[in-house]
Amino acid sequence: MGCFYCDKDNQLYDLMTEICKLSVSTLYLFREQTYRGRCNVVYNKHIGSLHELDDAELGAFMLDVKKAAAAVAKAFSPDKINYGAYADKMQHFHMHVVPKYIDGPDWGSTFIMNPQKVYLSADEYTAMIQDIKNFL
Amino acid sequence: MGCFYCDKDNQLYDLMTEICKLSVSTLYLFREQTYRGRCNVVYNKHIGSLHELDDAELGAFMLDVKKAAAAVAKAFSPDKINYGAYADKMQHFHMHVVPKYIDGPDWGSTFIMNPQKVYLSADEYTAMIQDIKNFL
Repeated sequence: MGCFYCDKDNQLYDLMTEICKLSVSTLYLFREQTYRGRCNVVYNKHIGSLHELDDAELGAFMLDVKKAAAAVAKAFSPDKINYGAYADKMQHFHMHVVPKYIDGPDWGSTFIMNPQKVYLSADEYTAMIQDIKNFL
Repeated sequence: MGCFYCDKDNQLYDLMTEICKLSVSTLYLFREQTYRGRCNVVYNKHIGSLHELDDAELGAFMLDVKKAAAAVAKAFSPDKINYGAYADKMQHFHMHVVPKYIDGPDWGSTFIMNPQKVYLSADEYTAMIQDIKNFL
């Protein structure tokens, strides 16, 4: 079975838009924006799980996650950021970075993987990506 | 408001049992065991979010998470391990380490924070903790 993170095909780009490359990962903006500013940090190698990364790779990946989260925090001022790595049926490690807001959806519980509710215009995605890049 | 991770009171021990100290964290076994082998890695300092840890602290914490996950993988042979950090209403960083099984609950989706379904006997918790410790 193919891996859309490796193939970089429409299956990937229907779900997210590339923001930029980071040290050992690629940062994507999640198209579904129920949680304003939601991103996905995707490791550049096809490795299935966090505990399979060697120590240096894991350290570098988590610094990328930290950098992305800090930029999202500055750009959108969420009240909390959630982090999640699941992908039971995939073998390409990535971590969702999900801003949460006190008066927003699912405050106080886990985020929903894909609520399929909030989509933006092309211009709005572009502006949001620029907002994040300004703080990277 | 108090923090049960700092206070180490009954509110904490009703939810989880200490397995051991790790480098910069404490490893707990989650009492609710819908996901067999589920643990929680709790940072030793009262800091709210991943992106607020300095680089060295974050690196050390993630090595603890990796060590815990690798032990869980060896002890219980899950088909995947999920990782989640949420705690919108708390300010003490921790990461859930949640084994998933192909024929088990919620395979292919996110894990439920607390299903409140599967609890074990004291002897079973003790055996499970020993199983994990054997691989740490």
